[in-house]
Amino acid sequence: MVSFTVTILGSSSALPTLNRFPTSQVVCLNAKLFLIDCGEGTQIQLRKFGLKVGKINHIFISHLHGDHIFGLPGLISTMALGGKKGVLHIYSHSELKAMMDPLLKFMNEMEDFKVVYHPLNFRSSAVIYEDATLQVESFPVKHRIPCCGFVFREKQHQLHLRGAQVEFLKIPVRDRVAIKNGSDYYRPDGTKVLNSELTLPPDPIRAYAFCTDTVQRKQIIPVIRDVDLLYHEATFGEDLKDLALKTYHTTAKQAAEIAVQSGAKKLIIGHFSSRYKHERLLIEEARSVFPNTFAANDGERFEL
Amino acid sequence: MVSFTVTILGSSSALPTLNRFPTSQVVCLNAKLFLIDCGEGTQIQLRKFGLKVGKINHIFISHLHGDHIFGLPGLISTMALGGKKGVLHIYSHSELKAMMDPLLKFMNEMEDFKVVYHPLNFRSSAVIYEDATLQVESFPVKHRIPCCGFVFREKQHQLHLRGAQVEFLKIPVRDRVAIKNGSDYYRPDGTKVLNSELTLPPDPIRAYAFCTDTVQRKQIIPVIRDVDLLYHEATFGEDLKDLALKTYHTTAKQAAEIAVQSGAKKLIIGHFSSRYKHERLLIEEARSVFPNTFAANDGERFEL
Repeated sequence: MVSFTVTILGSSSALPTLNRFPTSQVVCLNAKLFLIDCGEGTQIQLRKFGLKVGKINHIFISHLHGDHIFGLPGLISTMALGGKKGVLHIYSHSELKAMMDPLLKFMNEMEDFKVVYHPLNFRSSAVIYEDATLQVESFPVKHRIPCCGFVFREKQHQLHLRGAQVEFLKIPVRDRVAIKNGSDYYRPDGTKVLNSELTLPPDPIRAYAFCTDTVQRKQIIPVIRDVDLLYHEATFGEDLKDLALKTYHTTAKQAAEIAVQSGAKKLIIGHFSSRYKHERLLIEEARSVFPNTFAANDGERFEL
Repeated sequence: MVSFTVTILGSSSALPTLNRFPTSQVVCLNAKLFLIDCGEGTQIQLRKFGLKVGKINHIFISHLHGDHIFGLPGLISTMALGGKKGVLHIYSHSELKAMMDPLLKFMNEMEDFKVVYHPLNFRSSAVIYEDATLQVESFPVKHRIPCCGFVFREKQHQLHLRGAQVEFLKIPVRDRVAIKNGSDYYRPDGTKVLNSELTLPPDPIRAYAFCTDTVQRKQIIPVIRDVDLLYHEATFGEDLKDLALKTYHTTAKQAAEIAVQSGAKKLIIGHFSSRYKHERLLIEEARSVFPNTFAANDGERFEL
């Protein structure tokens, strides 16, 4: 299977701490990099964790609060100074362009490099990106301002050929793609060989869901069902459940409930309030509901 | 003497490196903090180096290139979230407000906290800030866009009283302030005592000058004359003298020439191009002209 990873660049909530930068993550599938959110210092974290700024062509922005976007001007400037060509696609609330344009007006280096903004849909889920191997779907969550989560889902893989059978029947290379896509095979004498005799099941489809910032929102469950890895914010513990509700955030226990109910295989929690000196309590709270829970820590890489 | 220090928060040029954040410095005089420039990550550096974000009330911005301002939105947000009250004064090109306002529109926390922008004069030097102990003067330098340097100069200190004389003559406390400000003293019998018999010279006046980004510009010499500490950009070495000129930057040797000609006591160079893996060559180049040269390194504190 090709590599499918999520690297945490920042895991704080609004106030960064000595160990946590504001929210940002890199999804890497098959050596393609996708950035989710871009808090202040994202370009510094990318460099620190050995990820090439210039390889990012798609950025997904959940919402327009500063701790999710204030790294964008610096990142875009650095891309331009580094000689990046072509188009950088940013999927976000439509107002982002008006926020960024005044900051980038002094950049002379952007002649062959363009930023294209794609507005998100905050009413219903929508496929916003697709390539040969991946589909990204946005879905509304509920925060103080319009906010979306994202699911990164692999597309259906091809079937695996049974090598020995293919060799024995001397199936020409030109016919193999059709078989990998499910066709039966007809031998030169017209005999039909069933696809099931020639193939093994494809690799499983892997999926990653990212949900922040939001109150606990059960409506997202159908969209994120059965993901291999779920990142869900857990700004507070249950001790501050009322504050979580008031500020449109989630507690660690509530995040774990979403993981249970959506059938996630593994949960990462993050976006911790700076009042928690250590994430241990939040992790314990989540694990009491969903044992396979881990804390997002800057620099950590999760493999799907 | 009260403490007068400069702490380097960032020392890179446009591209940050693993060791250097973009330009930002804190001048601290008598426990008051003044920020100069605010590259991305400034709030993170302040925290790292133990300087309180909330204590900054004045920010001086040399020019509007991203590596000098992209830390402002995050810093201002963090101040507001931290409950800062009153006014934050920012001295900059008048366009800064239009760049920042769209980014801060989603902040609800700014009810008792206000940012006031003060436009700089890019034609001639001007006193832009004054309090009981300090005066800050801006002066134009020459970059691709309008840019100012800043001189932080202590005000004239009071004379020191000769304690033994004051005691011997039983000078009342209420008369001592006038003597410290230079007055003679009249004894109850009308005899005049010359001020020079009652006082010792005041502490010397200390000054710090900050010059970046700019070509070598000899017109600044009268404004920065005889400072105790001069920070001057040295983006390139003499090997890239032509590139320095073309991009409106200074070489290490040129920075040292300014230090010699202005009578500076000590020189810090910084804003190093990321192409220099180590600053050693730039330091050696500057020291060949002005031996008392040091490199700006993030976290370093210079005492005047």
